[in-house]
Amino acid sequence: MKLHKLLQRVARGEVSVREAETVLAARGETNLGFARVDLDRHSRRGLPEVIYCPGKTAAQIIEIMSALIADGQNVLATRATSEQYAAVRRRHKKAVYHKLPKAITIQVAERSHPPVGQVAIVCAGTSDIPVAEEAALTAELMGARVERVYDVGVAGLHRVLNHVELLKRCRAIVVVAGMEGALPSVVGGLVDRPIVAVPTSIGYGVNFQGLSALLAMLNSCAPGVTVVNIDNGFGAGVAAALINRVREDIAKHI
Amino acid sequence: MKLHKLLQRVARGEVSVREAETVLAARGETNLGFARVDLDRHSRRGLPEVIYCPGKTAAQIIEIMSALIADGQNVLATRATSEQYAAVRRRHKKAVYHKLPKAITIQVAERSHPPVGQVAIVCAGTSDIPVAEEAALTAELMGARVERVYDVGVAGLHRVLNHVELLKRCRAIVVVAGMEGALPSVVGGLVDRPIVAVPTSIGYGVNFQGLSALLAMLNSCAPGVTVVNIDNGFGAGVAAALINRVREDIAKHI
Amino acid sequence: MKLHKLLQRVARGEVSVREAETVLAARGETNLGFARVDLDRHSRRGLPEVIYCPGKTAAQIIEIMSALIADGQNVLATRATSEQYAAVRRRHKKAVYHKLPKAITIQVAERSHPPVGQVAIVCAGTSDIPVAEEAALTAELMGARVERVYDVGVAGLHRVLNHVELLKRCRAIVVVAGMEGALPSVVGGLVDRPIVAVPTSIGYGVNFQGLSALLAMLNSCAPGVTVVNIDNGFGAGVAAALINRVREDIAKHI
Amino acid sequence: MKLHKLLQRVARGEVSVREAETVLAARGETNLGFARVDLDRHSRRGLPEVIYCPGKTAAQIIEIMSALIADGQNVLATRATSEQYAAVRRRHKKAVYHKLPKAITIQVAERSHPPVGQVAIVCAGTSDIPVAEEAALTAELMGARVERVYDVGVAGLHRVLNHVELLKRCRAIVVVAGMEGALPSVVGGLVDRPIVAVPTSIGYGVNFQGLSALLAMLNSCAPGVTVVNIDNGFGAGVAAALINRVREDIAKHI
Amino acid sequence: MKLHKLLQRVARGEVSVREAETVLAARGETNLGFARVDLDRHSRRGLPEVIYCPGKTAAQIIEIMSALIADGQNVLATRATSEQYAAVRRRHKKAVYHKLPKAITIQVAERSHPPVGQVAIVCAGTSDIPVAEEAALTAELMGARVERVYDVGVAGLHRVLNHVELLKRCRAIVVVAGMEGALPSVVGGLVDRPIVAVPTSIGYGVNFQGLSALLAMLNSCAPGVTVVNIDNGFGAGVAAALINRVREDIAKHI
Amino acid sequence: MKLHKLLQRVARGEVSVREAETVLAARGETNLGFARVDLDRHSRRGLPEVIYCPGKTAAQIIEIMSALIADGQNVLATRATSEQYAAVRRRHKKAVYHKLPKAITIQVAERSHPPVGQVAIVCAGTSDIPVAEEAALTAELMGARVERVYDVGVAGLHRVLNHVELLKRCRAIVVVAGMEGALPSVVGGLVDRPIVAVPTSIGYGVNFQGLSALLAMLNSCAPGVTVVNIDNGFGAGVAAALINRVREDIAKHI
Amino acid sequence: MKLHKLLQRVARGEVSVREAETVLAARGETNLGFARVDLDRHSRRGLPEVIYCPGKTAAQIIEIMSALIADGQNVLATRATSEQYAAVRRRHKKAVYHKLPKAITIQVAERSHPPVGQVAIVCAGTSDIPVAEEAALTAELMGARVERVYDVGVAGLHRVLNHVELLKRCRAIVVVAGMEGALPSVVGGLVDRPIVAVPTSIGYGVNFQGLSALLAMLNSCAPGVTVVNIDNGFGAGVAAALINRVREDIAKHI
Amino acid sequence: MKLHKLLQRVARGEVSVREAETVLAARGETNLGFARVDLDRHSRRGLPEVIYCPGKTAAQIIEIMSALIADGQNVLATRATSEQYAAVRRRHKKAVYHKLPKAITIQVAERSHPPVGQVAIVCAGTSDIPVAEEAALTAELMGARVERVYDVGVAGLHRVLNHVELLKRCRAIVVVAGMEGALPSVVGGLVDRPIVAVPTSIGYGVNFQGLSALLAMLNSCAPGVTVVNIDNGFGAGVAAALINRVREDIAKHI
Repeated sequence: MKLHKLLQRVARGEVSVREAETVLAARGETNLGFARVDLDRHSRRGLPEVIYCPGKTAAQIIEIMSALIADGQNVLATRATSEQYAAVRRRHKKAVYHKLPKAITIQVAERSHPPVGQVAIVCAGTSDIPVAEEAALTAELMGARVERVYDVGVAGLHRVLNHVELLKRCRAIVVVAGMEGALPSVVGGLVDRPIVAVPTSIGYGVNFQGLSALLAMLNSCAPGVTVVNIDNGFGAGVAAALINRVREDIAKHI
Repeated sequence: MKLHKLLQRVARGEVSVREAETVLAARGETNLGFARVDLDRHSRRGLPEVIYCPGKTAAQIIEIMSALIADGQNVLATRATSEQYAAVRRRHKKAVYHKLPKAITIQVAERSHPPVGQVAIVCAGTSDIPVAEEAALTAELMGARVERVYDVGVAGLHRVLNHVELLKRCRAIVVVAGMEGALPSVVGGLVDRPIVAVPTSIGYGVNFQGLSALLAMLNSCAPGVTVVNIDNGFGAGVAAALINRVREDIAKHI
Repeated sequence: MKLHKLLQRVARGEVSVREAETVLAARGETNLGFARVDLDRHSRRGLPEVIYCPGKTAAQIIEIMSALIADGQNVLATRATSEQYAAVRRRHKKAVYHKLPKAITIQVAERSHPPVGQVAIVCAGTSDIPVAEEAALTAELMGARVERVYDVGVAGLHRVLNHVELLKRCRAIVVVAGMEGALPSVVGGLVDRPIVAVPTSIGYGVNFQGLSALLAMLNSCAPGVTVVNIDNGFGAGVAAALINRVREDIAKHI
Repeated sequence: MKLHKLLQRVARGEVSVREAETVLAARGETNLGFARVDLDRHSRRGLPEVIYCPGKTAAQIIEIMSALIADGQNVLATRATSEQYAAVRRRHKKAVYHKLPKAITIQVAERSHPPVGQVAIVCAGTSDIPVAEEAALTAELMGARVERVYDVGVAGLHRVLNHVELLKRCRAIVVVAGMEGALPSVVGGLVDRPIVAVPTSIGYGVNFQGLSALLAMLNSCAPGVTVVNIDNGFGAGVAAALINRVREDIAKHI
Repeated sequence: MKLHKLLQRVARGEVSVREAETVLAARGETNLGFARVDLDRHSRRGLPEVIYCPGKTAAQIIEIMSALIADGQNVLATRATSEQYAAVRRRHKKAVYHKLPKAITIQVAERSHPPVGQVAIVCAGTSDIPVAEEAALTAELMGARVERVYDVGVAGLHRVLNHVELLKRCRAIVVVAGMEGALPSVVGGLVDRPIVAVPTSIGYGVNFQGLSALLAMLNSCAPGVTVVNIDNGFGAGVAAALINRVREDIAKHI
Repeated sequence: MKLHKLLQRVARGEVSVREAETVLAARGETNLGFARVDLDRHSRRGLPEVIYCPGKTAAQIIEIMSALIADGQNVLATRATSEQYAAVRRRHKKAVYHKLPKAITIQVAERSHPPVGQVAIVCAGTSDIPVAEEAALTAELMGARVERVYDVGVAGLHRVLNHVELLKRCRAIVVVAGMEGALPSVVGGLVDRPIVAVPTSIGYGVNFQGLSALLAMLNSCAPGVTVVNIDNGFGAGVAAALINRVREDIAKHI
Repeated sequence: MKLHKLLQRVARGEVSVREAETVLAARGETNLGFARVDLDRHSRRGLPEVIYCPGKTAAQIIEIMSALIADGQNVLATRATSEQYAAVRRRHKKAVYHKLPKAITIQVAERSHPPVGQVAIVCAGTSDIPVAEEAALTAELMGARVERVYDVGVAGLHRVLNHVELLKRCRAIVVVAGMEGALPSVVGGLVDRPIVAVPTSIGYGVNFQGLSALLAMLNSCAPGVTVVNIDNGFGAGVAAALINRVREDIAKHI
Repeated sequence: MKLHKLLQRVARGEVSVREAETVLAARGETNLGFARVDLDRHSRRGLPEVIYCPGKTAAQIIEIMSALIADGQNVLATRATSEQYAAVRRRHKKAVYHKLPKAITIQVAERSHPPVGQVAIVCAGTSDIPVAEEAALTAELMGARVERVYDVGVAGLHRVLNHVELLKRCRAIVVVAGMEGALPSVVGGLVDRPIVAVPTSIGYGVNFQGLSALLAMLNSCAPGVTVVNIDNGFGAGVAAALINRVREDIAKHI
């Protein structure tokens, strides 16, 4: 029930003041004691609440999943260990484990429509693939058609140059790179698509677990490159999917 | 002339091998000695080469501007001092100085079509406005209709809550904030639009000239928030305009 | 008008749904274009919106002050230059400049009651006094009786030991120190009062503009020491005044 | 025996000069060789010496506990492993292990009076609960009545908005958050209670084990927020309890 | 086939436009799905693509090796664990494990000519030897004659002074040091050879895993010292070998 | 009056309890309002309170000097600007300005005995001399005979090797160096004297205003090197002078 | 006189033991009081002692120059202000000021032979030119033929691709870049020459005065890239010139 | 044989030029292949070469020990694991393991004279004892009489105040502290002895493994405090012992 409707019903006496206050307090929040599941998030943000697994017990993860499923929402849990997956699997038989990105998904809702648009996920080296896959999986779950272009780092420039035409056709491009993080600048100089850069923690020494790549991306001389946290494939996937959807769901507003 | 066409003409003997090599070498680059103006950038990236003024002499700035103008391109120069503007003005009478964002523009090309879509520029405090204005100006130059929502920091939550409906109607949202940089997380929790966060250097002590806000934004618990460098209103404006155009110019591809 | 009352009036038909929406949108916010003055803050937070001057023009500062004064609220502007004060003075004749803490105050409202409780402001060295004075001024404006204990750094321990009895009588203690920032730990080991530690940027080399003192205070072996940003006398004064008022104004709740 | 009394007795010849010197040297210190237990701390600071377990052997922990118990004081040991607890348990049968905050308590003294006042412990996410529980346990041991408000992070603003009335009734509020650490600013903008912010190490990448949240909290635009070290629930609990007691035990002084 | 030749053949009709496009796309890149092996790198860079093992599965490493071997190229894999080596060994019987530098080599091509020139590998302490050996192995694989001078740190200056004549005879000198990283400055003050400094992570405390040595080397008062990443013996070996070859293979150009 | 004597007099009734309390409170502290001059420091620490000028007004500096002079103590003020000196000079005619170290001295007490022992002040480059001179001046004021050995950096090793015999004859050696800060390690490897290393802020880039030299010195492979803050010639001079005096004034104790 | 010869003469009685000691002490060092000019450096290191001007007075600079000139050596002074140059000019009429790199040179010795070999100086943007020119000037002074390739940053890849053939012909390549510092990786992926990368302080925000570019270069995925300090064009020029000379002057050794 | 003597013998023809060169090359260096044992260090530095165990194999440690023992020198190996000790023990039966500081000693030389002077080792908390013991052991091995004063941190000031008289009697004081590292400042304010401060890595969060304590000590407001690396008890012990010996062994020089 929207605020507007609620106020109308208060005005009509259909809802008491006390009831209105209670509704406002209770709406969209399932209190599990240790967690308040934000069931309303899908309608607000276009994706359900996603479970970040580190620091949570398997029992907590399972319970949050159950609350989401009870509400008819699909489940995505990131950075799950195989132990956490095993525990989840015992309870939720439909749970699927995606090894590279270490993600668990549970498909509940029927997918209403085929993937739309196109998002490219580009990565510099083989070691960056797990992060790239987290981005790809997330974007796909949010309805995007995804194209993977992997292992095209700048030390062999011809590799990315070979894919420029493909990249030009995408609505959003996620570029994943570790070490010196130069790839987003190179891609950003070649095409006019929004680019979401993801630094990875691949490297050693003054790489500082990805800080070097992050700084390079934030300092990119190619304007229009935006950046997410180190190894945050999930966040990049969400951003790319939201951009991909600009053409679709905004139509109702403008 | 595209590579494909060039090769065809080489095949047909219309272009000699030597000529083809020369064309590849010369294309899109006006060598001023101290600078190689990238005249091709507009077609590759959707915006002309932009002049970053710090560290350049007025003479250098003027000469690059002349090269762009000679090619019929509009000019945007960022972070220009009023002294640099005065020098530019003497040579280029149509130059306009935008005081808050310290930018110079020279409008050469007739604007072919009215602004499209909608981009919101949100900022947390009055001191963040210069950066917000740089983003707004850039997005406007790239063809976006822009809506400004200023001084709506989280210490008075009702201020941003009052604009949620407006924000939901935009294709992209730029959120500018200094100090603890919490505003993008709050906005990101309320709407499902792509959000480009810009940390500003407003603050003191362990703000570290904007580092605190930058880190907060990169760590945002609201997925889909992407980030640009501290005070980089220009980059955020480009990113937002590119997202805004996804609906428009990509049609030719997909 | 409180939310509860508003809803009651909506229920009684005294306020239309549209009006209620408008009220919620407009309440507590004076839109100056560049700033939305948060007039409601005093009732929410116990102090009016305070003007942080760096990065604001004199004109902006004056206009915000006028909005506050028009609402009958007292004015505090921090980190104001003497130039900013001169400009303010021309418009607001009652403006007072506090040189050490570089603050401007304008007393509008009659002070309804004498200062209550007791807050100690302790500082380690002469160079820390400006920050200490900012804390003292703020606490006094928020109704606290303040006791100053200055230049009692740990290199001459007897100096602070001489004031232990005084410190024990206070409701809250602000301890200001630069360099190695050891004073809060020493004070924290001697008395059982809440201690708000303020690191200052006094020092050089690996002091890193106050970082050394900040880290020391956050690592204090004396439990119960809490910390504010470097040179943030204002924040410490607010915190101490809020603690000082716990005995006074909470009575109505509990 | 207070200094004043001691000097009086020296003056009366009841205590020799040598004895007075000895008393000053020995008072409040039980020398275990590896540790000088500060038995006087309870009267000076309002809580007994607390045992920080990392870096100590089980034998050392047990011996310090014994010294405290022999003096009739309650015991709190923080950051204890389950192995350390097992060893303690063999010696001190009344030892209780609190799993979430990894704390050991031994209740020796009869609790003389029921909990007083009210302290709120607020946390942003499920993963922050162990730190929140350390704060809650500490505050309770120091006599405060504690209210827990968990999993109310800013990505779903309505969750914390639902508890504003509760928060307004508390004497002190501890706000625990990881990632971007925005929650204390939001809470600090809503209520006029002293707020102790605790950054947690929850996050990854440029979270830097909690540094991001710490910086955000120190830069909070909501004045009156004070901060403790990362994951320092204990310190926050002490600070909140000291604030909570301002109404109670200071009466004797003022 | 060089670009020039390709264009000539297109001009002569020997290669169709489509074929030319395909050749440009496919050249020098074996797509394994997870990796695009850069077979062209040897001719471009003077060394084959080198496999950086961390973050790769044994299966991936083996497959990349096979691609290189199939192309007749020698293999170097750095930072391989003994487990990774064991797996490689099962597939590639000629694989050799170099324990100190943790490198795997597979010699496929007949070495066409004996080592040339001379490169010195100098290290400060016994603990720096693994990094020094990685540099030595790399330089040897790239055709350099290598001289090792180990454990000659500055705390016993006579040790390095004893080898000055040897160092003067080398074409390039790699200097490996941890802790305060002073050795390159001392060597750089004694001889006029290009010096490649390698900081190691040997040390503790404010060594920050080699940062101290890195900073010292970058700040060296002996001009002409260049630096690679911490523990990057491989990079230093490549650099030294490239310098060593300046006399040999550049003859064809100048 | 020592504590022991005071207690004796209390015991004999010569001093009342109240008087004894007052004496303990007042001893060694001249309260100037903004500063409590620690007149007792000379007897406690072997040097008078030294005035650190940055952040103090000329008036404050003059008043502290007057308090010291009134007590018959010599004056040392460090990091004084020439403006501060000019103001001091107007009041204290005997004030002397030492240009290189920017120090003011006022000799009041007759120097009772000639300089003793020997302290070497060694520096790496010409730019380090101001810091070296601050150390030399301080050590001389504290009674040490000082030997200067300047511009003997490690890029020309023979320069310091030429002075080894001199260094071996000193009781303490201060080594001042910027950039990579290697000199203390080299000196520390040659002689068996206590070495106090002073990093200077000479350098640029990743020198980070002296941090590079500081880290190098703290990581010195030559044991026995101790370090003071960047540019802290004063602290090094005090430390060296205290070491120099170990032979002299400790005789009375042992 | 070499050590060997000196010992021979001692053995023959032509030089007394005392004389030999004196010679060893005095050789190669002109003591100016504040500086010991290292006249021997040219023969040891292949370039004369170079004067780093910051922190030196004009008088000191002039005196060091005079000592070098008296010894018949050419002079290079780096980072000189125009004021310092004006003072130098009054004394040394042959002094030349190089505006972009802010260097002073005085040519004393007749240049014995024409420039040899070839060194490329590549830079990414116009703002990097001053640093590039410092490198070029230094390399030229050390006898190298220099080729400049400026403003070829990665945001317009074709610019550097156009110069690959030239780069392949050089013995050493200096690559200068600010912001994200990606250019050395791209160049390093294209040619097999030793590359000396120079990060510049061009950029803002998390560029941290060049740190971002420095880290990127140290983490370069193109092996064989070595790095010097931020803005250290001089050091890069020395390194490139030393590499360039490997073919020339090493002949006498091998 | 000293240089002077050697030259005399060359002059007398007793030593040939070649022999003299060889002697200079070989002196004081036992080449084990992986290590050059610096047997001369004892006479140069007053302590034998000390073995830093991390990063060395047990075999390497044993062999270095054997070389030292063969030369009649005592052995000290720091940071040895119990596994390393077990291996050493099998070969060197006289090896003793000191558990707290994790050090191995082998006493070979008869101790020629009883401990002299007095050095105090002070530490703040129980967890700092291992570092303190490393300092104590080292100072004792270098001939100092050592007094331990443990667990006297500033949160209970009376504990250190009780030992002031003892501290005043020492020639040097080592002060070991973690967390906020305030103890050296407090001790430094009380006595006029040279103080060597040792930060320890005890703490968490923004302690940054001891950085907080290190910075505090370097910024100490008590002049004369010098500092060593984090947890470097060994270095502090050497420094204190060298200071302690100033009275003894320098007599021969002055």
